Amino acid sequence: MFEIKLDNAKYWRDCISAIGSLVDEGLFNITKDGITLKAMDPSSISMVSFSMPSKSFSKFTIDKNSSIGVNLENLGKILSRTRDDEALVMKDSEGKLSLEFVGPSSRRRYKLQMIDVKKSVEKEPNVVFDANVEISGDPLKDILKDASLISSYIAFKASKDQFTTSAHGDSGELEELHNKDGAVMKKVDASKNAEAVYNLEFLENMVKSCPSGNSIQIAMKSNEPLKLSYSIGDSELVYYLAPYMED
Amino acid sequence: MFEIKLDNAKYWRDCISAIGSLVDEGLFNITKDGITLKAMDPSSISMVSFSMPSKSFSKFTIDKNSSIGVNLENLGKILSRTRDDEALVMKDSEGKLSLEFVGPSSRRRYKLQMIDVKKSVEKEPNVVFDANVEISGDPLKDILKDASLISSYIAFKASKDQFTTSAHGDSGELEELHNKDGAVMKKVDASKNAEAVYNLEFLENMVKSCPSGNSIQIAMKSNEPLKLSYSIGDSELVYYLAPYMED
Amino acid sequence: MFEIKLDNAKYWRDCISAIGSLVDEGLFNITKDGITLKAMDPSSISMVSFSMPSKSFSKFTIDKNSSIGVNLENLGKILSRTRDDEALVMKDSEGKLSLEFVGPSSRRRYKLQMIDVKKSVEKEPNVVFDANVEISGDPLKDILKDASLISSYIAFKASKDQFTTSAHGDSGELEELHNKDGAVMKKVDASKNAEAVYNLEFLENMVKSCPSGNSIQIAMKSNEPLKLSYSIGDSELVYYLAPYMED
Repeated sequence: MFEIKLDNAKYWRDCISAIGSLVDEGLFNITKDGITLKAMDPSSISMVSFSMPSKSFSKFTIDKNSSIGVNLENLGKILSRTRDDEALVMKDSEGKLSLEFVGPSSRRRYKLQMIDVKKSVEKEPNVVFDANVEISGDPLKDILKDASLISSYIAFKASKDQFTTSAHGDSGELEELHNKDGAVMKKVDASKNAEAVYNLEFLENMVKSCPSGNSIQIAMKSNEPLKLSYSIGDSELVYYLAPYMED
Repeated sequence: MFEIKLDNAKYWRDCISAIGSLVDEGLFNITKDGITLKAMDPSSISMVSFSMPSKSFSKFTIDKNSSIGVNLENLGKILSRTRDDEALVMKDSEGKLSLEFVGPSSRRRYKLQMIDVKKSVEKEPNVVFDANVEISGDPLKDILKDASLISSYIAFKASKDQFTTSAHGDSGELEELHNKDGAVMKKVDASKNAEAVYNLEFLENMVKSCPSGNSIQIAMKSNEPLKLSYSIGDSELVYYLAPYMED
Repeated sequence: MFEIKLDNAKYWRDCISAIGSLVDEGLFNITKDGITLKAMDPSSISMVSFSMPSKSFSKFTIDKNSSIGVNLENLGKILSRTRDDEALVMKDSEGKLSLEFVGPSSRRRYKLQMIDVKKSVEKEPNVVFDANVEISGDPLKDILKDASLISSYIAFKASKDQFTTSAHGDSGELEELHNKDGAVMKKVDASKNAEAVYNLEFLENMVKSCPSGNSIQIAMKSNEPLKLSYSIGDSELVYYLAPYMED
């Protein structure tokens, strides 16, 4: 049994959107510390690890740890209907997740069927990264879009004081240089050069829900999975993406 | 022969849009009192009754009552091109409906082929309703959209002081409570509880053209056709919709 | 070898968009006077002639005249990614066209594969026009859209002091009168009446990129190709369109 309340329902909507852009279904673990979810996308190329601390909630009552499996697309649809000035109360109710939106003059209650999620040990990749990059989220979205006009893949290259992206395809090629301490590139810190190619569609889904104005952290090691993370309020979204290896 | 003029062509555009969202073709009756149209949708589940008084027109000249059949989709397309500050003059012209848009420096004249509309006695359903609900149009549009994420049908339930909507589908269920005298619910007045299920797509088409800020009147009796009405300026739109009966 | 620079990359983007709406590929001729391109659309019904003077560029260095063939769709995609406050440096680089966008804190370099364009003598039609019309671009776009609801063709008719457009189709007919010296019609000057029918889709593509607020010049002679032209900054776009002849 749990009953938890967020004063601003849109906060939960934005977090679910960030998870649902990558995975179809997931298992939320609810403990006294807060809510976490780890899930791989259906193709197993990428992974998301989400955590929201209990302090984000104005009410957080649980009698024991619970795990609830949900279809994230259906949950996302419900949350897309959030109005301004609505609080959200979530609780479990006979195998269903109850979501109650409480507005100034109406209340709206959804009950979402819980689902079985094959629980697997979702360990995060254990990589010692060589390079850390901090980049503004909005320009990063633009950089990915630039490359998508040329190719389905993008190469990231981090060196001591520069972060370079490139793409090449039948119609031409693209290279973008971002200097450290610019408006776009906040920090580059590489003990060794790191370079790898990644699938653009996955990257675009990962950064899509980063709130405008926030920074994104990228950790890299040549030809190893990328770690990409950002915050939504108190919550943390961490994504991993396997590199693309040409045959 | 008739020649009628509206100083604001957009008024006619909005009325035709409200009719055309439900029916494909219709017969406008033009008498000295004004213009009326009654038509059923192709599936005969719903009906629209429209009336616009002659006082809405700055010129209203008719030599006898006329009935003109028009394809509402074609008429709607023409009206979608209305610019700001245009007056509209309509007259009959050799089996065609002439629409002349008169703007500050241009005039644009369409002639729309009239069509044969099988004239049937379109009597309005004769129901003694148990409940009357007055609800703001914009939140009602939201309520229908909420339900459409769950199901193709919505249940309306009116009681002495509450109006409740609900929907259920494979992915979950939804219930919304609206208290009397809230910003959403203007009035609820039920001599007896009334409850029925309606097709969402039809309801959405009915309310679509309700001008922002206007109220919508709903009259109900359990498992009987719903009456839904609102005004556009001096004109009145009345819709009827048969209830959905599960087998 | 050439190296040319525009302080505002969006200027080039808008010009390429105006060319690319009609033709898929083209040959840019670069001489000390500037850049020109003449091309016919794949169906040979229409032609575009573009010229941009060297004074539009903040840097214009060429060692000899060059002709570069480009796929305009691919070039247009690259230019669609132009950000505010970016300059553009273009040069040839080993059979590729290099486009470097230089912004405040990043630089982005595309290399676009040049292509073979079958060079043909693209002479402009030699017509002595009877009528010249100057019309505001935005209302002309509206006029074309009005007609497209009725037909795929539009008739233009210019007389001493009036410009009339008309269309007819199965659903009805349309006629628009535009008086001289109105807000829409700037000038009409016809030594003889001129009248012809043109393909609407081509006309819509021709006027699409006319900057808001600019005027469009139309030169006509009955049943001869139309000449339609407008400016984007210092650059001139001239289009020709063969009349539609009903069998």
